[in-house]
Amino acid sequence: MPTYKAPVDDALFLLNDVFHIERYGNLPGFSDASPDVIEAILREAAKLSEDVLTPLNRVGDKEGCKRSADGSVTTPAGFKDAYKQIVEGGWIGISAPQEFGGQGLPMTLTEIVNEYFCSANMAFAMYPGLTQGAIAALIVHANDAIKQKYLPKMIEGVWTGTMNLTEPHCGTDLGLLRTKAVKQGDGSYKITGTKIFISAGEHDLSDNIIHLVLARIEGAPAGTKGISLFVVPKFMVGDDGAIGARNGVSCGSLEEKMGIHGNSTCVMNYDSATGWLVGEENRGLNAMFVMMNEARLGVGIQGLALSEVAYQNAVVYAKERLQGRAITGAKFPDKPADPIIVHPDVRRTLMTMRAFNEAARALVLWAGLKSDVAHRSGDAKERQAADDALGLMTPVIKGVMTDVGFANTVSAQQLYGGHGYIAEHGMEQFVRDARIAMIYEGANGVQAMDLVGRKLGKDGGRALMAFLGELGAYAKEKSADETMKPLVTALGQGSGHLQQASMWFMQNAMAKPDNAGAGATDYLHLFGLVALGYMWCQIADAANAKLKSGGDAARFNAKLVTARFFMERMMPETATRLARIQAGAASTMELPAEAF
Amino acid sequence: MPTYKAPVDDALFLLNDVFHIERYGNLPGFSDASPDVIEAILREAAKLSEDVLTPLNRVGDKEGCKRSADGSVTTPAGFKDAYKQIVEGGWIGISAPQEFGGQGLPMTLTEIVNEYFCSANMAFAMYPGLTQGAIAALIVHANDAIKQKYLPKMIEGVWTGTMNLTEPHCGTDLGLLRTKAVKQGDGSYKITGTKIFISAGEHDLSDNIIHLVLARIEGAPAGTKGISLFVVPKFMVGDDGAIGARNGVSCGSLEEKMGIHGNSTCVMNYDSATGWLVGEENRGLNAMFVMMNEARLGVGIQGLALSEVAYQNAVVYAKERLQGRAITGAKFPDKPADPIIVHPDVRRTLMTMRAFNEAARALVLWAGLKSDVAHRSGDAKERQAADDALGLMTPVIKGVMTDVGFANTVSAQQLYGGHGYIAEHGMEQFVRDARIAMIYEGANGVQAMDLVGRKLGKDGGRALMAFLGELGAYAKEKSADETMKPLVTALGQGSGHLQQASMWFMQNAMAKPDNAGAGATDYLHLFGLVALGYMWCQIADAANAKLKSGGDAARFNAKLVTARFFMERMMPETATRLARIQAGAASTMELPAEAF
Repeated sequence: MPTYKAPVDDALFLLNDVFHIERYGNLPGFSDASPDVIEAILREAAKLSEDVLTPLNRVGDKEGCKRSADGSVTTPAGFKDAYKQIVEGGWIGISAPQEFGGQGLPMTLTEIVNEYFCSANMAFAMYPGLTQGAIAALIVHANDAIKQKYLPKMIEGVWTGTMNLTEPHCGTDLGLLRTKAVKQGDGSYKITGTKIFISAGEHDLSDNIIHLVLARIEGAPAGTKGISLFVVPKFMVGDDGAIGARNGVSCGSLEEKMGIHGNSTCVMNYDSATGWLVGEENRGLNAMFVMMNEARLGVGIQGLALSEVAYQNAVVYAKERLQGRAITGAKFPDKPADPIIVHPDVRRTLMTMRAFNEAARALVLWAGLKSDVAHRSGDAKERQAADDALGLMTPVIKGVMTDVGFANTVSAQQLYGGHGYIAEHGMEQFVRDARIAMIYEGANGVQAMDLVGRKLGKDGGRALMAFLGELGAYAKEKSADETMKPLVTALGQGSGHLQQASMWFMQNAMAKPDNAGAGATDYLHLFGLVALGYMWCQIADAANAKLKSGGDAARFNAKLVTARFFMERMMPETATRLARIQAGAASTMELPAEAF
Repeated sequence: MPTYKAPVDDALFLLNDVFHIERYGNLPGFSDASPDVIEAILREAAKLSEDVLTPLNRVGDKEGCKRSADGSVTTPAGFKDAYKQIVEGGWIGISAPQEFGGQGLPMTLTEIVNEYFCSANMAFAMYPGLTQGAIAALIVHANDAIKQKYLPKMIEGVWTGTMNLTEPHCGTDLGLLRTKAVKQGDGSYKITGTKIFISAGEHDLSDNIIHLVLARIEGAPAGTKGISLFVVPKFMVGDDGAIGARNGVSCGSLEEKMGIHGNSTCVMNYDSATGWLVGEENRGLNAMFVMMNEARLGVGIQGLALSEVAYQNAVVYAKERLQGRAITGAKFPDKPADPIIVHPDVRRTLMTMRAFNEAARALVLWAGLKSDVAHRSGDAKERQAADDALGLMTPVIKGVMTDVGFANTVSAQQLYGGHGYIAEHGMEQFVRDARIAMIYEGANGVQAMDLVGRKLGKDGGRALMAFLGELGAYAKEKSADETMKPLVTALGQGSGHLQQASMWFMQNAMAKPDNAGAGATDYLHLFGLVALGYMWCQIADAANAKLKSGGDAARFNAKLVTARFFMERMMPETATRLARIQAGAASTMELPAEAF
């Protein structure tokens, strides 16, 4: 049975010492988030994750969700009680606006809490996680009546939310969608169509389920310009907020899938279901993108979360499992064999995971703070800059953190040898669960195209320029520091490759856009390496400061060693990524489709 | 439901045009293997794979194996009939010695056939595959009485074989094993102990199951020097070959595992089971290694096999699935969207798989021919050289082909988007099935250590020198050819990195063996890239010759393009691998175990 310990101290170090959260005290909600309050919240979230959600992870995988003939869906044993604790703790709304019953604390805090919940039980954490995404979309785009009606209950958690985009014939290309909306006399719409892969589409955890549904209003233009967003509750809600009759939406079947068995993945049938428009007609994709950006950050966190819990369990096993002797001579001659952590290849695996996890966590907080600034700052220029940075980094976080997160679950499983392939140890579940994160909320190839095709060139490349400028200024400032110099030099090589790759696209992809497409995934990962390397520099800098001021030597030395490992072992990959990008699209695109 | 088409033409091209199998006509068995005979055999194997084994793949995954209270195990519906066809076709023994009823054909042929069987149904293919491994061990190490008693039935396939190494507390480190053997007056032994993860340990496909079991004879030395190999039949066999009483070996339980559900993975209990010594006392590991080398080649083939079938299904989907428009403008304006194969990132994914599969298949045949020469040549020097090359490449084939093969099943699944995560398309099964190949027969980290710690230095580095020498001579010969020059140049860069890495180990790992351990996995993959690149050069050379002599232009041009893709996109990774190796072990090993 896998174990989990939420890395609270690491988050506190990042918030307080690396990112100096106190500097954000002028933002609404941040003054309430004193170091004590933050620590108390995180310790509470850790307890819930470790004691309640972790033990349900294997149960959820084994039992899965069950659909009855009437279309109702039962979640695995224990999920209902656990969800009650989520509601009672007010966890869904810690960063939601106070006017709707939230606590208004920084979104950054929610990101950290979500990491813990996902590490403990990803399939479970998706229920509150999707609700948070739906809340975000309603806050930005819904009218007041809708907000008043739905948000308080959703923020409380007694109602949950979903996203309904995908249809059997359309996923990435939403322009193809067919679900229809017909306007009624009372201003509502009748929604008819079939949606697939709807996570948490139907279940027994909440009193109502609020579906956000993309559909095409009768007579709307074809393609993406004719798509509108609707809110469609499972049960109708009276003006007094009371739950009324069942709406015309139901779960047609549950998908049999590779993992996240504890989450109900539904085919949802809309049969003249009553819905209300969210935002403007035919501007549904825009509204949905708000939700999707939040969701993409959330999915990136899932990648980190599973990498972290898989790593923790790999460490436990590597210290316990006795097998072979260290090549430098027996370390525990009194035991029948040494623990496998003595073997360099095992160490390499553990260090690789660790070097990713700790920097990825920093990157999540970096993005969380950008999100908070973008939403809460009173300074328009500051908001703009933060929004630029967040928009640029969102596909990187989603794509890289789920690709590498998945790879790390595979590595962690590998350390268990044959035992990793057996269900009872839970390592293979991490792999199966982590796999979905590379696919949903925009498959990672789509993230790569979002980065290269949309984010790079947006506003004349403003976001990229700003990020590269920040890296350059940072390197200049720190290279005078002897302890930082080797790290900053390695970062400089990586960011040099990033610059070259960006330049190469500018020169070669305008006339031949295939050159951008063929290099997009490599560019995404090159960007990720540089971003993580930048985080390592900042972590190391903070660790140096801690060491100088008498902080825990073992703990902060470990940060310095891991930073070095990252630069020596992981950063060099930027060279290969650049070489691939610069190879261009010719050999990739030359064969005719019939040759495959 | 996934489909499969065995790539027979590709194998024929490799045998006839790349490796010129006719040049091996002097070896026993090769003269019987005329081009017509080979093609007939491969077409027959293809038919069996496509029509019989492929349709059973999903069935096997869904149903799995079932153990009854009496310890008997039932395989999934259809497996029994399919296995009957394996026996009737004589497939297990096509390369086995004629004196025991085999057909004596080249082992190379068996490797090709096994690729098809594994692509079609890996869980099923393991039953005959393990029998072939057991046959190989008995041929080399058993005495005549044992050979006469067991081999004919095993080669026919009516009896199957297993390998029993692993125990709950020992996998890689077999020196720890506890299963006991007590010598009896009649020369037999009583074997007692528990073995785990025994593939095909118990099932209903064959009349008898012949277990090869590692155990420690009473009073034998501790560690690996006290291990002996025994043959332990499920049913006792009379001197007349008739099946007698049940032996004291039974299946205690079936493991619940991530994939290969159609294969029975058993806990095997030996309770004073009667067994007979194979080879010498206390030399069991040696004997087992024969089986393991065959098995490791076989497992490498599994990696290729799953990569191939996953690729084929990804191609089908990429041509069918309409989503989005080509960035260079709509390719099918009459359709609602273009097929996703127009997108460069999809192409990149397909080309990456293809560039691996076709070269990996060549590498398997290269190794198969080395194996045939090593076993069958009349020239001792030739045998030695072939054995050197095979020993060097075995960990590379096992480690690289299963790592990359698995990664390719993940990539193929990725192209399906959300549909790839759903069981019905079968793509997620390929991922779960392929995963085990990285683990069993020596986890890939162990393969890396075998290569770096054992194979490199063996006989003063003779095998490596010979291989590098062969590469150098090849490059020199071909660099005069203008069409080959770009490929040979890229190969030269890769092999230069391999040489530098080898040199670095020589200079830095003697005094500090951790430097070898920390770089072993990177070295394994660096070696793999060079080996695959070498194969691409040879394939391209043969394709050029075909084109000159009027061969199918589309087909052989595709080889040239794919060779270029490999060199431009995949070979550059050698630089990163080298950089990691040269970083040494310092940051990998610096942290104390408590820091994890």
